[in-house]
Amino acid sequence: MRFGYFDHAAAAPLLPEAKEAMMPFLGDEFGNPVSLHHFGDKPRAAVEGARAQVAALVNSRPDDIVFTASASESNNLAVKGLALSRKAKGRNIVVSAIEHVSVLEKLKSLGVYGFDITEVPVDADGTVHPDKLAAAIKTDTILVSVMHANYEVGTIQKVKELAAVAHRFRIPFHSDGTAAVGRIPVDVVGLDVDAYTFPAMSVYGPKGAAALYLKRGTRLQPLIEGGFQEKNRRAGTEDVAAIAGFGSAAAVTKSRLPEWSESMTRLAQRIFKELPEKLEHIIFTGSMSSRIPGHVSVVVEFVEGEAMLLSLDDEGIAAASGSSCSAKTLKASHVLLAMGLPHTKAQSSLVLTMGKDSTDEDVSHFLDKLPPITRRLRQMSPLYARLQKGEDPYAVKPGEACEDEQEHETDER
Amino acid sequence: MRFGYFDHAAAAPLLPEAKEAMMPFLGDEFGNPVSLHHFGDKPRAAVEGARAQVAALVNSRPDDIVFTASASESNNLAVKGLALSRKAKGRNIVVSAIEHVSVLEKLKSLGVYGFDITEVPVDADGTVHPDKLAAAIKTDTILVSVMHANYEVGTIQKVKELAAVAHRFRIPFHSDGTAAVGRIPVDVVGLDVDAYTFPAMSVYGPKGAAALYLKRGTRLQPLIEGGFQEKNRRAGTEDVAAIAGFGSAAAVTKSRLPEWSESMTRLAQRIFKELPEKLEHIIFTGSMSSRIPGHVSVVVEFVEGEAMLLSLDDEGIAAASGSSCSAKTLKASHVLLAMGLPHTKAQSSLVLTMGKDSTDEDVSHFLDKLPPITRRLRQMSPLYARLQKGEDPYAVKPGEACEDEQEHETDER
Repeated sequence: MRFGYFDHAAAAPLLPEAKEAMMPFLGDEFGNPVSLHHFGDKPRAAVEGARAQVAALVNSRPDDIVFTASASESNNLAVKGLALSRKAKGRNIVVSAIEHVSVLEKLKSLGVYGFDITEVPVDADGTVHPDKLAAAIKTDTILVSVMHANYEVGTIQKVKELAAVAHRFRIPFHSDGTAAVGRIPVDVVGLDVDAYTFPAMSVYGPKGAAALYLKRGTRLQPLIEGGFQEKNRRAGTEDVAAIAGFGSAAAVTKSRLPEWSESMTRLAQRIFKELPEKLEHIIFTGSMSSRIPGHVSVVVEFVEGEAMLLSLDDEGIAAASGSSCSAKTLKASHVLLAMGLPHTKAQSSLVLTMGKDSTDEDVSHFLDKLPPITRRLRQMSPLYARLQKGEDPYAVKPGEACEDEQEHETDER
Repeated sequence: MRFGYFDHAAAAPLLPEAKEAMMPFLGDEFGNPVSLHHFGDKPRAAVEGARAQVAALVNSRPDDIVFTASASESNNLAVKGLALSRKAKGRNIVVSAIEHVSVLEKLKSLGVYGFDITEVPVDADGTVHPDKLAAAIKTDTILVSVMHANYEVGTIQKVKELAAVAHRFRIPFHSDGTAAVGRIPVDVVGLDVDAYTFPAMSVYGPKGAAALYLKRGTRLQPLIEGGFQEKNRRAGTEDVAAIAGFGSAAAVTKSRLPEWSESMTRLAQRIFKELPEKLEHIIFTGSMSSRIPGHVSVVVEFVEGEAMLLSLDDEGIAAASGSSCSAKTLKASHVLLAMGLPHTKAQSSLVLTMGKDSTDEDVSHFLDKLPPITRRLRQMSPLYARLQKGEDPYAVKPGEACEDEQEHETDER
């Protein structure tokens, strides 16, 4: 009973073509790409072939692609690597208030080295305005990082304009493209970014592979050092199979993106239109005009996000509830809070990320199941009870947000 | 014509059991282990099952295993993570002179943050003596890192005694076990190390997975931050397939290690005995008494390491020539130099690392081919010509070592 997988932001099925491309490197072609002998030949050719395919997806030169193991690693490498290589020039870093935790957290650790962070606010639909960015930049700002699209609310940023603002101040610009790649066409040259993160998973490739585009000539302090792999930008034996799968997935996605985008957009539109007809007290979040295909984010008032997810799961529907809430931590989404939603509403978020294989049946099933689930859960809500009595539900003291499950034992931050 | 793969240090074939364990996660079980819905269930169970298997291999608690993507990442995480978390206590780090580049290089970058590095010398067979370590430790030393075994010369270090020295000074001890795991039994509790690196590849597991054992209660600044994966010690979506393969490979290796070790030891002994009968002017390097099974390292005088490798490759024999020489860089081995070999000899190194499937036929083929290859190459050596004339070959000015192919453009070190 797997009926409706709407969590492509967390994981996407592997393309058969990508799996096929991986198999030789889990078999006879087990060699190390750096080897001088012939066991290295096909692995090395596979890595370089994949680099060309991955580069083509975002209109990069192959040499400007650094392979890493995850988007989190790419983000860490970009933000920390660029900041540390420029620390003689200044110590301020500007980011949007809605970055992924792998950008925000990394910056916290940079604080250890004396960097300070300025957050640019977003408007109510999650957009960073270029004039706000310009206002945030200080004389000692050395790096700007604003994501291309946000996976919690679907909003696409004006990256080209934001990068232009940074460049006006001669500051490099990084963008996390995890939510954009595989959903909209991306041209890193056209956007004029200096660094750009995207994982294989965004194009139905395997876990264990991701890319950082790094514009030619951009200085970077490597995160993982001690080997000359990736032109001294990232040490460690390349995961040949995963990289080969990434390359294949990038090529397939590039050719089929228009068709997939259209399908995902249409399915999301059905939800935007039909869900309000079936369910009251819901608020769609994020921009409606500048939005990634196949993305629906909605606050379902008077229901806890986690309770919704578990009830949907019982019906075979996989969804999420905001990037930092979607799993083990239940803190209210920092993205929704930054967009001005109150805590109580930010805990009631539901995020659907469709994929190329999502169907009308999946959507219909979701539209059938969410309303009764919501009604049942609302019966347990004291806020909803007040609303039913004609009172202001939000006059009550909101429940406290839960804390991160941090193990301070192993973490000094 | 693949006849004699003697480069298991660079890459090892994947165990069929490990490949089998990976396959579900390249298929229907594509979910993210952190997901609350049921798509996360089997991936999460696979990661935790693998953690138990990997832990059992080295006698660790499962919770003390952090999964990373490569031994280089584990080494970087250990050395940088431990040093940064203890920087309030001091700035000196002590390592052996023969560490892998992923330890040595990392320390260079730590120099950027004001850490200084003390190298403990090794003796002529590559052994670090506990008294030498004790003498190297300063009042502000905060970390000691000495590898368990060296892949270039095969020498096994007295890790338990070295760790005891560090602990006498209340300093944590890290060991890189890449060359030891899968060749000798490893017990991290018995060795009493605080951190221990090993990759899946050492047990015939896939590329893209490695472990860092981190003793309970050991503080660590994470390298890749921004997710709560691996108990906040390493962010990023887990590569479930690779981790599942690692777990399976660890379990198989644990059960078959005695048999494999015996086979590899016997084959190496054949070379130690038979090669000197067929070829003059050779020097076996590393300890003969405390040595990993299946490892042969030999200086073949008057021959360039790379030329030997390419000629052997023409005969279907895959070998290496010292960790930093084995591929794109041709710098003389820093390990052999540290052991006191002159530059000219350190450039003539040949390293054979056997595996569980290496055979007597492989060894016989190698023993047949190396002598004629060497004789042919020596005809091109001006040093050898001097020797033939009864002169001292090493009286000539030795050729200059080549430099690393560093792209300074992207690297500030």
